[in-house]
Amino acid sequence: MPTRSITELTTLATDALVRAGARRAMAESTARALVAAEAQHLSSHGLSRVPQYCAHLASGRVDGQAVPRVQQTRPAALLVDAADGFAFPACELAVQEAIRSARACGAAFAGVTNSHHSGAAALQLAPVAAAGMVGLAFSNSPGAMPAWGGKRPLFGTNPIAAVFPRRAQGIDQSPLVIDLSLSKVARGKLMVAKQEGRSIPEGWALDKDGNPTTDPAEGMEGMMLPAGGVKGAMLALVVELLCCALTGAAFGFEADSFFPAEGNRPRIGQAFLVIDPAALAGGDVFHARIETLVEAMLVDEDVRLPGSRREALADRAVLEGIAVPDALLAQLEALA
Amino acid sequence: MPTRSITELTTLATDALVRAGARRAMAESTARALVAAEAQHLSSHGLSRVPQYCAHLASGRVDGQAVPRVQQTRPAALLVDAADGFAFPACELAVQEAIRSARACGAAFAGVTNSHHSGAAALQLAPVAAAGMVGLAFSNSPGAMPAWGGKRPLFGTNPIAAVFPRRAQGIDQSPLVIDLSLSKVARGKLMVAKQEGRSIPEGWALDKDGNPTTDPAEGMEGMMLPAGGVKGAMLALVVELLCCALTGAAFGFEADSFFPAEGNRPRIGQAFLVIDPAALAGGDVFHARIETLVEAMLVDEDVRLPGSRREALADRAVLEGIAVPDALLAQLEALA
Repeated sequence: MPTRSITELTTLATDALVRAGARRAMAESTARALVAAEAQHLSSHGLSRVPQYCAHLASGRVDGQAVPRVQQTRPAALLVDAADGFAFPACELAVQEAIRSARACGAAFAGVTNSHHSGAAALQLAPVAAAGMVGLAFSNSPGAMPAWGGKRPLFGTNPIAAVFPRRAQGIDQSPLVIDLSLSKVARGKLMVAKQEGRSIPEGWALDKDGNPTTDPAEGMEGMMLPAGGVKGAMLALVVELLCCALTGAAFGFEADSFFPAEGNRPRIGQAFLVIDPAALAGGDVFHARIETLVEAMLVDEDVRLPGSRREALADRAVLEGIAVPDALLAQLEALA
Repeated sequence: MPTRSITELTTLATDALVRAGARRAMAESTARALVAAEAQHLSSHGLSRVPQYCAHLASGRVDGQAVPRVQQTRPAALLVDAADGFAFPACELAVQEAIRSARACGAAFAGVTNSHHSGAAALQLAPVAAAGMVGLAFSNSPGAMPAWGGKRPLFGTNPIAAVFPRRAQGIDQSPLVIDLSLSKVARGKLMVAKQEGRSIPEGWALDKDGNPTTDPAEGMEGMMLPAGGVKGAMLALVVELLCCALTGAAFGFEADSFFPAEGNRPRIGQAFLVIDPAALAGGDVFHARIETLVEAMLVDEDVRLPGSRREALADRAVLEGIAVPDALLAQLEALA
C-alpha cells in the first residue's frame, strides 16, 4: 500500500470535500477528524468516508455551507446547532465551549442537534484530555437495533466514549481512552462474513422481520443486536434520550442510513460531558487515584490500558505516514 | 407472607438501625431507601440489607454518627463526604445540591466519597425526575469483576441508572427509569444455582484463579464476568474512574465485600449528573421528543417502558402494603 503523510492526506480529503461543495473550514475540520481516525486504524471511520461524505454533499443530505452556532447557553449547559452540516465542526465547537464552561463552573454538558455522522467519538474528546479534564461523549446514529423485545430498528448502535487524562510523577501520560458502540458486533463483521460466505453466530443480528438469523445478508437487511442483551438495549435508549430528547435532534429510527448517497438529512444528535477534576477532590488526588488503578490493572500481563494501542498508532503515523489502499487513494485523488 | 404498611416497615427498619448505633436521621434516610426498594420487589437491595447494615454498625465498618457534608463546591460541581456513614443520606444531599446547581447553571455533576452500599441506584434519582430534570447515577462497589483480560477482581459490578421525566398532553407521567449493573448476571443467580445444585452457563463467572467455570460455588469464590464482554468491562472502568478518581473514593478492589460483618470501611464512591432540559432545547421540545420515541417503542407489543413495572409495584405497595417473608420480619422485629 502507498504511504502518505498526515498533511498530504488531510489536504487531499479537504480538497475532495471542498470540490463537492463544503466550505473550506468545514472541510478542514472534517478531513482532520477522518485522517485522525485513519491514523489509529479505525478505517470504518476514516478516509473510506470521504467518498460517502462527498456524495452526501452532492445529494443535499449535508449542507456544505452550514455554519454551526451556539443556540442556547447557560453557565454549565449549551446547545450547538450543526445546521445540517457535517458533525465535526459542530462537535468541535460544543467541546471547546464545554471545556470553557467546565473550567468556570466545574462541569458542563453540551448537546449538538441537526447533526450527521460523528465518527470515532473518542477523537472529539482529545481537547478535553489535553485540558486536563474528564470527558464523556455520546452520539446516536441511524436506526440499527430494536428496543428490548422489539422487532424494528429504533436505536442506533450509539457510541459511548470517555477520556481520563493521566499524569505520573509530574509527567503527562497518554490518557485512558474508552470508545465503544452498543451493538454486540459492528455491522462491518456481517459484511465480511457475507463476502466470505460464512454464517454468523446467533445473537449478532435479527432479520428484517425481527427473527434471529445466522445469515449475514439477512442480518444486514435486518437489525443488529445490542451488546449485553437487555443492558445494551437500555444503554442505547439512554444515549438516544441524551442526544435527542435534550437537543431536539432526530432519533435513530427517524434518520436514514449514512451508507446510500440519497436519503434524508439525518439530523441526529451528540452529547458531551466535561468535568474538571479540580472541582471535586482535586487534580493531585485524581492523578494519584488513576495511577493506583493503572498499577493494579497492569499486574495481570494480559490487561491492556484502553487507548494505548491507538495512541501508539497515532504517534507512528506522525513519523511514518499512513498506508492507504491503492483503490481508496485513487478514489480520493479523483475526487480532489 | 405477612403484609405490613410502608410506614410500619420504615419505622421497624429505622428502629433496628438506631438500636445498632445509627443516629436517627441517618437511620430514617437509610430505612426509607430500603423500604422503597422492597416496595419495587428489588429484594436484594431491600429489607434483607437491614441485618447486614446493623452488623456493619456493630463492627465499625460504618460510623453511625457520621454526618455527610459538602466538602467542595463550584457552580456546577460538588463533592459530598459521606464520612464513613451509610450512603443514602450522603447521596440524598448530593442529589439535592445537584438539582439546585442544575437549576441555576443548566447541569451539575456531584460526587460522593467515603461511602457505602448505595442500593438501587435509580431510587436516588427520584427527586431529579420530580424536579423535571434528567438524571444519571453511578456507583462503584466491592471488587467483583476483572479488568478485560485480567484474572483478579478489580472492578465492582458498578450500577448505572438514568431517569427521564415524562409529560404527555400537559400531564405528568411516570418517568422512564433505567437501572442496570455491569455484570452479565447478578451474583444472586449463582447463589440460587448453588442452592439448587445446578451448574451455570459458561460466560457468567470465573473461578478464583481467573479460569472459566460452570460451578456456581467456584464462581462465588471467584469473579463475575461483565455484560457484553469487553464493552461491559470498559464501562465498569469508566464507572470506577467517575466515582473514585474524581472523588478520592476507594476502587472496587480496595473495598471488602459488603456481605460479611467484618471488613474494612469500604469508602467507595457515587456520582450523579443532573441536566435541566430547559437549558438545552427546552422543556416542550424535550417532552415532545420523548413521547415520539415512547410511541415508536410501543408499536411492538412486547416492548415495555423501563420503570413502568417498578412504578406499578410502588403504587400498589402504597395501597396494599408490602409482603415480607416471615423469617425476615421476625429478624427485623428482633433487631428493632
